[in-house]
Formats: sequence, C-alpha cells, structure tokens
Amino acid sequence: MANNFKTYKKDSEYSYTLGVFLTIELLLNKPEHALVVYAKEASERNSGVSKIRELCAGNGIPFEINDRMVDKLSTKENCYVVGLFNKFVTRLDPHGNHVILINPMDSGNLGTIMRTGVGFGFPDLAIITPSVDIFDPKTIRASMGAIFRMNFEHFGSFDDYASEFTGRRLYPFMLEGTVSVRDLRKIIEKPFSLIFGNESSGLPEYFSYIGTSVVIPHSNYIDSLNLSVAVGIAEYELCGI
Amino acid sequence: MANNFKTYKKDSEYSYTLGVFLTIELLLNKPEHALVVYAKEASERNSGVSKIRELCAGNGIPFEINDRMVDKLSTKENCYVVGLFNKFVTRLDPHGNHVILINPMDSGNLGTIMRTGVGFGFPDLAIITPSVDIFDPKTIRASMGAIFRMNFEHFGSFDDYASEFTGRRLYPFMLEGTVSVRDLRKIIEKPFSLIFGNESSGLPEYFSYIGTSVVIPHSNYIDSLNLSVAVGIAEYELCGI
Repeated sequence: MANNFKTYKKDSEYSYTLGVFLTIELLLNKPEHALVVYAKEASERNSGVSKIRELCAGNGIPFEINDRMVDKLSTKENCYVVGLFNKFVTRLDPHGNHVILINPMDSGNLGTIMRTGVGFGFPDLAIITPSVDIFDPKTIRASMGAIFRMNFEHFGSFDDYASEFTGRRLYPFMLEGTVSVRDLRKIIEKPFSLIFGNESSGLPEYFSYIGTSVVIPHSNYIDSLNLSVAVGIAEYELCGI
Repeated sequence: MANNFKTYKKDSEYSYTLGVFLTIELLLNKPEHALVVYAKEASERNSGVSKIRELCAGNGIPFEINDRMVDKLSTKENCYVVGLFNKFVTRLDPHGNHVILINPMDSGNLGTIMRTGVGFGFPDLAIITPSVDIFDPKTIRASMGAIFRMNFEHFGSFDDYASEFTGRRLYPFMLEGTVSVRDLRKIIEKPFSLIFGNESSGLPEYFSYIGTSVVIPHSNYIDSLNLSVAVGIAEYELCGI
C-alpha cells in the first residue's frame, strides 16, 4: 500500500471518494473495500474528519495526513479528504424490483439515479453496456454516496439480463408508451423491471413489444425529459409498492 | 458584426447555442435576438443545417460557413453549428404559477429544471441570486433549448421577489415540510409559487414560516433528493393544475 495511487482511469482497479461526506458513506457502508484515507493537514479540526478517523481506526483502515496525495487525486479545489477503495462487485436481488438503464452515458445522470433509487427504495440497478463508468469519481460524487448502498450489475445486452432474470414483468419507458405512469401503480405486478433508454436516443422501438410500455406525459415543446428526472418520477410513483 | 466573438464569459453581452438542435430552438423561439450562425463546412449536407439555413434566411440572420469560429467557440468536439445571440430579458407572468430557485449553483440542474418546466407547463422561473449563470452555454445545453421558451427573472433576494409578486400562495419545499407533495394537488390554491433551496444547503429554516411547507417523502438513507429531481416531481404532481 505504498503511495503510488494515480489519478483515476477507467481501467484502474481502485477508485476514490472526494470529500468528507462521500468518504463517510464509503466507510459506513463498504469498509471492507476501503484501502486508505488521505486528508489534508488543514482538515484536522473538521468534525467530519474526526468521524472518518474513528471509522478508519475501528475498521483497521490506514488514515494518513498527506496534502500532496489529496491534491494529486482531487481535481476539486476545496477537497480535503480522499478515500481510496477497491472496485467491488455486487449482485442484484433476484426477487427485488429492478431499474434497467440501457447505455447510460452521463455520469451526473447515473449518479443521480442511484441517489434517487436509494431515496425511493429501488436499490437494484442493471446497466446495459456500453455505458458511463459507474466507478468514475464524478459518478460517485453525483450519487452522493448512494453507490455504496446499491446493488448493481453490468450486462453486455438486454438479452443477457433477460435470460438471467426470467419470470418478471417488464415496463419499458417510451414516448409512445401505452400506459400512463400515472396509472402504473394500479396495474403493475411484481417483481418488475423498469427499463429506460439512453439520454440521446431513448429506447429502440422493439422495446414496445416487450412487456407493457409506459409513458410519462409531457408537452410537445420538449423532445423528452432528462433521464434522471424520468427515472425519479417513475420511482416516486411506485415508491413503497 | 465582425468575426470578433470570443469564448463565453459571464459578462459577455452575447451567448451561443452549441449544436444543431439548440440552434434550431433559438431560431424558432427567439429569432429577434439571434446575431449570426456559424457552421462547419462538413455539416452542409445535414438536414438540420438545411433547416437552420432556411430559418436564418427567413429571419434575416447571417449564416456563415466558418470552421475556425465553430472550433473557437465550441469546446465540444463533435459540434458543427454555433448560434450567437444577444442575451435577452423576459418577464414573469404575474398571473401564472411560478417556480423559485434560491441560489441554484449547478448549470446542469438549472438547465434540466427549465427543460422539465416547459415539459410540465411551468414556464415561469424566478432565480434568487447569487446563482449559476443562466446564459452559460452549459446551462443552455442542459435546457435542451427550453431556455428559449421560458420566462425568467433574477432577484437579489426572496424579499425582492415577494414584494413584487404579492397575493400569491407560497409553497417552500423542505425536508421538514408539513404537507406531503402527494397531497399538495388537493389543497393548493392559485396562483402559487413553489420554492426550492440551494443544492448544498436547502432552504433556510425561516421559510417554514412562509406559506405552506411541502415535503417529498424519501428514505433516511439519503440526505436529500437532487434539486432537478425534486423540482421535476413537484411539477409532475401539479401538471395541468
């Protein structure tokens, strides 16, 4: 565990949390994957950093004052703490309801979708590749640490997902959906999977033949809703189901 | 109108749309503020660019093939069209329902909120400064052109807003709100203003004494919802009211 960590790349075996809040979420939820926490000297009186010190001590994770490493790994100027961790693998709950994202490409959207998923009780996320990197520090920041409370799995195609998770109801969200999201709660059957397309292109038309397609009605003055807003509305409607 | 436009700064008198879609939205909705459209030579066979040419011709707006200017103004590699326009002023509809953002700081959120507002019929947006720059090309891109269909005004404080727009119902969105957003539709009175706090800090507590505070219920595993998701859910609930 020498100080040889480099700025994050997609093929790095590790990633990191930037800032106190995210680092606490890492240490609370995935301490077994944490490698080391670096903090700046000026942060020592911060109460969050005291909590981080305690969590590190309690879990046998090295805590080091190292301004140089924080500056090197962080691109955010006012970042005082960086938490390194090994990338980890999680499994979807086969009995839970899933959200499936087909080729999501924006780190802000993917992070926000995880945050909303934890908020509304949808912790199981399937991602069809190619996609933005879920372990990119930008995605982790947008998730506000929700990544450490999620189950997520990547699949090379929707068919790969569907052949592993059979016997569930599928609800693709499409501009020409047959059912309004406002009525979905009344008809939905569990376990279900909500399916959302890519930011630019939405879902290919053949998804309208897969399960029951759903529309979020909006005016014609916009092409579509933002992906993370659309997922948020769907999860809000189905929260607690 | 010499070719002396520089990369956008907050104090520029102009801004610009990056890409075909945004430029069409500019020319359809705010042609009176458009200055000039630059396109790359390689874009000439693009059907969207043909439409842009027609809109420019019909509105007396210069259209110029100028690869150098597109490269200079755009930071997005695959951008082929840039539409320059003078920053403009709009007025809120005094009889309409308003969304008020207190110190929004993220261009992605502000743009997304405009996009959702146009989608759900909330075109009147009050912004309390300091705030992110609504004319930043990043905000415009996140709005997907909705900025050209919105009414928006800036106010130095909430009091400035409230003293201009009197006699309306105020609904601040807060984690400790007294009414659930799920019940809001039943009790809301028009014209109303929905009030949302800053991304980091939410609304100051004194807003709980202003009007009827509203909560979007979510689990305790997250601190709060993303701002643009929260606004989206509120507008979705009240759409068509």
